[in-house]
Amino acid sequence: MLDRIGRDDEGDGEDGTRVGRVMGAIRRRIGGRTLAPGAKLPSIRGFAKVMAVSTSTVVEAYDRLAAEGLIQSRPGSGFYVAGHLPPLSLAEIGPKLDRVVDPFWVSRQSLEAGADTLTPGCGWLPAAWMPQDELRRSLRQLTRADDTVLADYGTPLGLPPLRQLLSRRMAERGIPASPDQIMLTESGTQAIDLLCRFLIEPGDTVLVDDPCYFNFLALLRAHRVKVVGVPYTATGPDIALFAEALTEHQPRLYITNSALHNPTGATLSPATAHRLLKLAEQSGLTIIEDDIFADFEPEPAPRLSAFDGLDRVIHIGSFSKTLSAAARCGFIAARPDWIEGLIDLKIATSFGGNPVSAELVLNILKDGTYRKHIATLRDRLSRATGETNRKLQGLGLKPFLEPRGGMFLWCELPDGLDAADVARRALADKIVLAPGNVFSVSQTATRFLRFNVAQSSDPRVFAAVERAMRG
Amino acid sequence: MLDRIGRDDEGDGEDGTRVGRVMGAIRRRIGGRTLAPGAKLPSIRGFAKVMAVSTSTVVEAYDRLAAEGLIQSRPGSGFYVAGHLPPLSLAEIGPKLDRVVDPFWVSRQSLEAGADTLTPGCGWLPAAWMPQDELRRSLRQLTRADDTVLADYGTPLGLPPLRQLLSRRMAERGIPASPDQIMLTESGTQAIDLLCRFLIEPGDTVLVDDPCYFNFLALLRAHRVKVVGVPYTATGPDIALFAEALTEHQPRLYITNSALHNPTGATLSPATAHRLLKLAEQSGLTIIEDDIFADFEPEPAPRLSAFDGLDRVIHIGSFSKTLSAAARCGFIAARPDWIEGLIDLKIATSFGGNPVSAELVLNILKDGTYRKHIATLRDRLSRATGETNRKLQGLGLKPFLEPRGGMFLWCELPDGLDAADVARRALADKIVLAPGNVFSVSQTATRFLRFNVAQSSDPRVFAAVERAMRG
Repeated sequence: MLDRIGRDDEGDGEDGTRVGRVMGAIRRRIGGRTLAPGAKLPSIRGFAKVMAVSTSTVVEAYDRLAAEGLIQSRPGSGFYVAGHLPPLSLAEIGPKLDRVVDPFWVSRQSLEAGADTLTPGCGWLPAAWMPQDELRRSLRQLTRADDTVLADYGTPLGLPPLRQLLSRRMAERGIPASPDQIMLTESGTQAIDLLCRFLIEPGDTVLVDDPCYFNFLALLRAHRVKVVGVPYTATGPDIALFAEALTEHQPRLYITNSALHNPTGATLSPATAHRLLKLAEQSGLTIIEDDIFADFEPEPAPRLSAFDGLDRVIHIGSFSKTLSAAARCGFIAARPDWIEGLIDLKIATSFGGNPVSAELVLNILKDGTYRKHIATLRDRLSRATGETNRKLQGLGLKPFLEPRGGMFLWCELPDGLDAADVARRALADKIVLAPGNVFSVSQTATRFLRFNVAQSSDPRVFAAVERAMRG
Repeated sequence: MLDRIGRDDEGDGEDGTRVGRVMGAIRRRIGGRTLAPGAKLPSIRGFAKVMAVSTSTVVEAYDRLAAEGLIQSRPGSGFYVAGHLPPLSLAEIGPKLDRVVDPFWVSRQSLEAGADTLTPGCGWLPAAWMPQDELRRSLRQLTRADDTVLADYGTPLGLPPLRQLLSRRMAERGIPASPDQIMLTESGTQAIDLLCRFLIEPGDTVLVDDPCYFNFLALLRAHRVKVVGVPYTATGPDIALFAEALTEHQPRLYITNSALHNPTGATLSPATAHRLLKLAEQSGLTIIEDDIFADFEPEPAPRLSAFDGLDRVIHIGSFSKTLSAAARCGFIAARPDWIEGLIDLKIATSFGGNPVSAELVLNILKDGTYRKHIATLRDRLSRATGETNRKLQGLGLKPFLEPRGGMFLWCELPDGLDAADVARRALADKIVLAPGNVFSVSQTATRFLRFNVAQSSDPRVFAAVERAMRG
């Protein structure tokens, strides 16, 4: 039932038998809370009709579920869901999606990929592109740090000199964040998770871009909220549809990337930023601006947090994409009056940050080598984007736009091809692709694939894509 | 309103004026969701009566709250809560507690303590007690690691050789966890937080010990659940009251420390463990056994997870207390069929773990130096416990029991003294104490203080306690 790799649990059931199909259907109703603890199960005859199977099949299925303890028989009365709900399964919340386009598909496949698997679908740079010399030098510096640096919990906001440095960096982009408005987190993802806990509650509605980074969808499922997508254009969200969504759904929160949008590579225009913030103000909307790709920009584009002055916009950053995904460090810049509550939440849910990671990052950021590294990365990415684009166009794929920077190309397959099918076939060739619908709330990116140009230098990638497109 | 350090927001209001008091009362009702978004506020005349103020005071308070956007006036109809709820404040959820005994009080004071402040109330060892040479050696080893170790995301479960090592260590304590049943986390706290997300939902009831580790209470508030305490004795929870709580409250989950219980230092007896597990089985209760103090034990005491074989008990560990709180690494050992769902949740909410921290811990655990370090720590703690106990008894404090190991002494003040008053006065002397009620759901540990013997070697601690007891 938890299997999310191709094998579909909707159609054939857990073991392909009729009994398995009935068991799967009941499990899903319990997992999705349609059948709450203590609730009576459908009658055997009734459910046999619903499932188009014999009553003996349903009897067998109920007996097996009872043996597992998921349901209980009360003689003379029927079957009831056992008092103890099964644990939350994110794979079962929200609309039922094809497993291959589950928001976890790309992350699980990429994170679990063996050494013989290529991952043009993943969202990070190869380790060899990261500043290895600087990381090693920073570790050597750490061996000479004070005892407290290596062994004590950090302060709740996190390493003061790193927050001062981040404050100066944000000022360069026009974002007014004093060091006291900045809280370090263990990652950009943890930053957004903390903010969701702080700002929303189960049942609320949250706006995202369609398409958007697939892990926003996974994270929002964990918060049990309703997710509404707004189509994303080459200059930001479609403002007319954004206004409609505000009126119709009254969302509490909007999560977006302003610059080098994931997966499209698009950039918010100043006019769209202005209109979006006016709408947000009118409807009391809070915005999380996830800016983890900022350092890939050739020149700064508008930031919602800079326009807004960190009033209703919260700014998120991290160094997992440009420095190291192994020594993780993210941060939140928010209104001063929200920081106390965020500190409480951080202590309650993770007690402290990771001072060793913060020191590692600070050692690298504080001298000039990081800027040089970033300049090199941008050049390298720009060349890789050109090459990957050329090869993909040679295969008949069409880029949504030519991105200003970053690692992503959002490409459309020729008519008649389904990206999920292509991704499934490529996986058999040990190539992890990122099919469009993992990024799409409305499941309308059926023909798109996101390519990471830094992970697409191996000719096997294009050979496999070509084979997978042929079917 | 968010102030949690002594200044009471219940009595005098935000600025000490009558208007401020009325504003504070409305804010709390909105914060605590007594007044939901869109709800009508109490009438001006009615609320003036309730608050024993004039109607003009209430008018002024409502006007100011409306100017802030928290409420809205609808002419001819009254005042309504604005559509957009203010962010979640943990300080406002749950029963209103005296701010000085808020569950965050000890953590915030300890984590934010300046160099001139002593922290006998905190829950960790001084940095100088940690294995500094080993930490530095481990960092030097890391400078020679592969590129991927320093820059790539880890696998979802985390560093395989560390999980293999943890599996062998747990086997020594009778806990049968294969490496595939172990998931690394960024800390013990994050482990419990993930499990709460997996196992419970808002509105559920969770059992804890009374007293228990105060951050359990903070964490459970963040999960918006009802918390019920069961009195803890020298041999574990009071089994008769535990049984009663199961019947009366039908909790989904119980969170506890089996060995070297925090704050009492008590140890679960085999008989209590057996009865507790029988009750848990009868009522379908899941148990989180937080075992982060395991390495401080002189000889292993019974573990619920060992008795139960990791069926309904989940085992948690970390190295923040014995190795480093700066390079954080915790873990979960759970039933095999829960691991997939936990991986999804970990990816959704933090994307990956921190491989650098995991490598640092592994480097130290895998040779013999860690066991030697632990043996030294135990001796040192044993001596410090004797000395601290003697000094506290000299001041008239009475230990709840003589702990077998660990860093905590749970002590009762002489009759007539309130631990919160004593802690407040000690703070003026720059000494952070841990007053009993931060650990107590029922707020019945009024006369207790928890002392960390490793942080109590400075004579100023006892001089300050003596002064604070005199008042």
